[in-house]
Amino acid sequence: MQSIEGHLPSQSPLHAILAPSGIAVVGASSDPTKRGYKAMVGLIKGGYGGEIYPVNPKATSILGVKAFASISAIPGTPALALICTPAATVPDLITECGRLGIKGAVVLASGFGETGEAGAALEARMMANARAHGVRIIGPNTSGLFNLHHRVNLLALDNLKTGDIGIVSQSGNMLLSLALEAQHNGQVGFSTYIGPGNQADIGFNDYLRYLGEDEHTRVATLYVEGFRDGRQFLDAAREVTTMKPVVVYKSGSTEQGQKAASSHTGALAGSYRMTVDLLRQAGVSVVQYSDEILPVAEGLGRLQKSEGKRVAVIADGGGQATIAADRLAEAGLTLATLSRDTQVKLEALLLPQASTLNPVDVAGSSDANPSLLAECMAVVAADANVDSVFLVGMFGGYSLRFAESLLGDEMRGAESMIELAHSSGKPLVIYSLYAPINPPALSRLHEAGLPVYASIEHAVRVLAALGERGEYLAKCAVQPANLPMQASRNGQAILTNAKEQKRNLLEFEAKGLLAEHGIHVPDERWVQGSDEMEEVARHFGEQPLAMKVVSKDILHKSDAGGVKLGLVGEAALRDAYKTIVANAQYYDPGARLEGVLVTPMVEKAVEVIIGMLRDPVFGPVLMFGLGGVFVEVWEDVAFRSLPITQADAESMVSQIKAQKVLEGVRGAQAVNKQALVLLLMRISKLVDAYPSIRELDLNPVMVYPESHPHGYAIVDARIILEREE
Amino acid sequence: MQSIEGHLPSQSPLHAILAPSGIAVVGASSDPTKRGYKAMVGLIKGGYGGEIYPVNPKATSILGVKAFASISAIPGTPALALICTPAATVPDLITECGRLGIKGAVVLASGFGETGEAGAALEARMMANARAHGVRIIGPNTSGLFNLHHRVNLLALDNLKTGDIGIVSQSGNMLLSLALEAQHNGQVGFSTYIGPGNQADIGFNDYLRYLGEDEHTRVATLYVEGFRDGRQFLDAAREVTTMKPVVVYKSGSTEQGQKAASSHTGALAGSYRMTVDLLRQAGVSVVQYSDEILPVAEGLGRLQKSEGKRVAVIADGGGQATIAADRLAEAGLTLATLSRDTQVKLEALLLPQASTLNPVDVAGSSDANPSLLAECMAVVAADANVDSVFLVGMFGGYSLRFAESLLGDEMRGAESMIELAHSSGKPLVIYSLYAPINPPALSRLHEAGLPVYASIEHAVRVLAALGERGEYLAKCAVQPANLPMQASRNGQAILTNAKEQKRNLLEFEAKGLLAEHGIHVPDERWVQGSDEMEEVARHFGEQPLAMKVVSKDILHKSDAGGVKLGLVGEAALRDAYKTIVANAQYYDPGARLEGVLVTPMVEKAVEVIIGMLRDPVFGPVLMFGLGGVFVEVWEDVAFRSLPITQADAESMVSQIKAQKVLEGVRGAQAVNKQALVLLLMRISKLVDAYPSIRELDLNPVMVYPESHPHGYAIVDARIILEREE
Repeated sequence: MQSIEGHLPSQSPLHAILAPSGIAVVGASSDPTKRGYKAMVGLIKGGYGGEIYPVNPKATSILGVKAFASISAIPGTPALALICTPAATVPDLITECGRLGIKGAVVLASGFGETGEAGAALEARMMANARAHGVRIIGPNTSGLFNLHHRVNLLALDNLKTGDIGIVSQSGNMLLSLALEAQHNGQVGFSTYIGPGNQADIGFNDYLRYLGEDEHTRVATLYVEGFRDGRQFLDAAREVTTMKPVVVYKSGSTEQGQKAASSHTGALAGSYRMTVDLLRQAGVSVVQYSDEILPVAEGLGRLQKSEGKRVAVIADGGGQATIAADRLAEAGLTLATLSRDTQVKLEALLLPQASTLNPVDVAGSSDANPSLLAECMAVVAADANVDSVFLVGMFGGYSLRFAESLLGDEMRGAESMIELAHSSGKPLVIYSLYAPINPPALSRLHEAGLPVYASIEHAVRVLAALGERGEYLAKCAVQPANLPMQASRNGQAILTNAKEQKRNLLEFEAKGLLAEHGIHVPDERWVQGSDEMEEVARHFGEQPLAMKVVSKDILHKSDAGGVKLGLVGEAALRDAYKTIVANAQYYDPGARLEGVLVTPMVEKAVEVIIGMLRDPVFGPVLMFGLGGVFVEVWEDVAFRSLPITQADAESMVSQIKAQKVLEGVRGAQAVNKQALVLLLMRISKLVDAYPSIRELDLNPVMVYPESHPHGYAIVDARIILEREE
Repeated sequence: MQSIEGHLPSQSPLHAILAPSGIAVVGASSDPTKRGYKAMVGLIKGGYGGEIYPVNPKATSILGVKAFASISAIPGTPALALICTPAATVPDLITECGRLGIKGAVVLASGFGETGEAGAALEARMMANARAHGVRIIGPNTSGLFNLHHRVNLLALDNLKTGDIGIVSQSGNMLLSLALEAQHNGQVGFSTYIGPGNQADIGFNDYLRYLGEDEHTRVATLYVEGFRDGRQFLDAAREVTTMKPVVVYKSGSTEQGQKAASSHTGALAGSYRMTVDLLRQAGVSVVQYSDEILPVAEGLGRLQKSEGKRVAVIADGGGQATIAADRLAEAGLTLATLSRDTQVKLEALLLPQASTLNPVDVAGSSDANPSLLAECMAVVAADANVDSVFLVGMFGGYSLRFAESLLGDEMRGAESMIELAHSSGKPLVIYSLYAPINPPALSRLHEAGLPVYASIEHAVRVLAALGERGEYLAKCAVQPANLPMQASRNGQAILTNAKEQKRNLLEFEAKGLLAEHGIHVPDERWVQGSDEMEEVARHFGEQPLAMKVVSKDILHKSDAGGVKLGLVGEAALRDAYKTIVANAQYYDPGARLEGVLVTPMVEKAVEVIIGMLRDPVFGPVLMFGLGGVFVEVWEDVAFRSLPITQADAESMVSQIKAQKVLEGVRGAQAVNKQALVLLLMRISKLVDAYPSIRELDLNPVMVYPESHPHGYAIVDARIILEREE
């Protein structure tokens, strides 16, 4: 479904900007407090190989480099201009850049769209000039960028190690924080950094695609405060995550939904949790805490993925083995069940007091012989039940703690682990309590691309991200086609009719539209007068009936006294009809009544809610959750961007935390999950086929065990249409 | 209720052991791989001031210190013996220690109770000798101890900074990990460490009391795998937490309840969450992740507490301000509402683009003037709405990032913060992205006792722990007396009668016992024959009734067909009686039937569950939670050690995550929480008054709004008695 052309490296305008043949520094300065000074220092000290053109009308040279009075005075054509001058000067400078043939500009100044109306107008003027002259803009209000493999460093950050982590961060402080953490760690390096700023031109999705294409980047890492176009970002993410890991930290996890909404679905939309669900659906590794960003990026960059979530733990101390087991379980990983063969091999290696169940506790076996740990890792890595290996304890510190003479054996152990990492293809994740002081064996592991963590918690986050990524890729590989649905003539007629009357669908119309596309709806009769009740009573026979008012003006039928339950026989129907009409008129004398809907009472069962809305940032989104008190109290719901695949639908159902309710609690039978999955997929297709549906709310839907003929009963359905203003 | 004598420092045997006048090292060695060597090195290099007596029959001196062939050959009387020899030698050595007048022994060897029956017998022999000769034992199977203020270091750990964190850790690796983290951090120091090992003699509660008494310890930090006597530990914790913070990491967070249990309460007991609830009830600061132990201990040690949970954030970057706000909200802290006066003062200090709402974002105001941050901190600290101040951003790094010339101003800022910390009395917590490289201003803050964190997440954990501790202490100060209840004659008779018949209480007896002590129970009749139904029908009149079988042999009445609902009139009662008797006989032909219980149907309302059990580790524990599907699916329950105070009862009710259910969901009225609190307190007293109650289960209890006369209806009650074998 996605175009493939966009992948060709030559297509991204960012390649020329991020690996420029020459750079103009507009506002270059000799004053050490100015950004125009820092950028010059960064380029010179960083060893940038292209031409540097400082632009400053008051200087003939800056830091020993010949300066130019204006952009137009530059003799050659730099590929990139770094603009360090105030906001007001920018629009004209962009025009000047364009005339000289400069293809990209990094605009540092703030004072644009982020400050209000005047700034927004300035930003619009800048963009008009940029478009007119074919200049692409990074920023404005960006902290800058670097591309270490091309020795471009516009930030003048010292001590950056060149590596494979690409970063896009909406916060300059966050980039600085990651850089300092990496410097302290000593082993983690970066490829590219870009501050997107206001994203007036180039946005997150473009930056992500660039990192996906960049050969030096093995993991794309993004710090996001808000998406400009979430839908496009999801498209880009879907493309990139199949090639390399994408790590996102999204801030604003506790913000409440932006706006009061007209439905349950709406109330939970626009939220952090919705964003997280949609990102994960696109294969993104979402990290929850800011101090996990770098460890997870490092681990995913180096190890990429594991085939699954079954982890073997090798520990040299019971306490930390227990902590590891706790954290693995909390993260949704499982302790691999080691085969009998594996256990026998471990028993042969270890002292009798060792535990060869997972977590394996060597219990002193390695005290005089730390390379034994590498042997144990090799044994468990060879077990087909194991997806990844987690070493927990004091490896690297044996020579410090026990005897210096153990150093040789520790270094041999490290070499064995490095070999094992290459030969087994299974990720090895290492936690060592000696990591903070980076002794030789750990330094060697790091150097060879095996990440070593100082926190069990961080190591487990990495194992979880590896497993989730492996499962995602496996799912992508077998994704069955979800054929689209065609709008039907009857369906179109229902919508057209409502639109002509400038209203949303009435309940029976909404259900009619669902039925039109193979979705089971209860048998029901739309009745517009008391005199029809004889026929209705005959039609439904002895079963107890529900009666609901039909009116485009009454949204909350129960509140209006517009619902009567448990009706049997013609007399009861006539009575109920009278009462409902009276109640509705009393509730809203101006309401236009369109009669009532009569339908058999549905059997009580597990209540779920299925909703769709068009999110202003992410476009059409489907929500599924447990209904009733569950959605109100626990907000136990799942979101997916539409359209969904079968795997998406299945994962929505299995994501519900109260699985027990679906699987049968208090003696109830399990619900028919397959029917639920099909229903979710049909709703997805239906919404796709009728773009004028703005919101859909099936609430409640009763879900039944497999023995039930339809699997579910849609008790109420609301469909809200796009307003055509 | 707790004895006060135990508090006197002179009473704790540990003072003499941990600050010994002389130390015998039994098994001292010149072999660098042996513990008997390491201990000697630790004592000598650590500068221990007392006599050291190496004991080794094969050496005349060890590391230049005169050695003795046996303990008995030692001329003086050391206060402590460190025993490094194998397990089998220990019992006799203890006797020898006792004969020489040595009061304490640290036993390193493993191979005791932790290894099985033979080891347990050896441990028992050791303990018999210890008791006979008045020797107190640390261990066996301990990693050792240190007491840095007395220069006692039996672990030979290098690079330990002397400070105020006292540690007890069941895992030697965990101690090592904390020590290495502290070494790396460079600012955190320790007072005492003790490895409790098997706790054959001295247990966690004794160690905790010692740390409580120790003048050099400002925070007691415990890593616990399992408690030997949880009840005693809770008693010790209640004493110590009023004096100084106690931090506990409890491993095994995902272990399931140890045993299949006979009730809902039982199934959730013995769990990690129960342990956490009970520890918090005693004022303990429980940390959830192992990498939070040291940061939280450091923060609590230095800052002790905040008066509440209202935090003011001062940030120099919007991104990290948002992260801080997210984490604070997740941790149950609130962003303080700054007074208008405070905002006016901040406006006067800051640039127009700054935000003076909380989080305060200085937005560039401090770029050339980092000490401005200290001024902002002083302004918010003076606001009565603020309990603690959180600085977030790049303080300490301005001189590195912007201009070296800012260093002086940064150092001035640090001094102002130090002064503010002393003058305001409100805790200042600092996160800096420069913390990993510890620049001069941060180093100065650290030195002056202001903790600086490299992780926003850890800093927020510290703020949360400070606020929780402040609230706990405030609650302790105003704890109303919860007068005990006396067992009544009627109550005793009910229990005696059941005990004589070697059975538990029947439902009506259980309810009778509750009624005896002012707990409202529904009007109900115990009926033993069909012929009584006429009178019963007359008594209850027109209201629909429920009928339940009464039999000590039938625990699950519904399963046995022993419950009939909605009965009106004599005929229906007679019918139901016949059916129930027939069903019960069919279900269990051997069951002894004691008639039926007839009671009005209760109005449906919010279902809760109240349970009590005697936990093997923690003693009597009360559980409260939402009933029905909530307890089964969400395990949304709270535990408290009995007896409870009013504050405990209130916190149990407010701890329930699904507060919305109690406060009225889907149009329902809020329940009468006060009635619930009184009920919980009465149950607590009742259980106290009748020690032979082993388990109590009120499930369900319907809870009603304030308009209801009793507030609740106890639908079913089970009381299980202690077996007197």
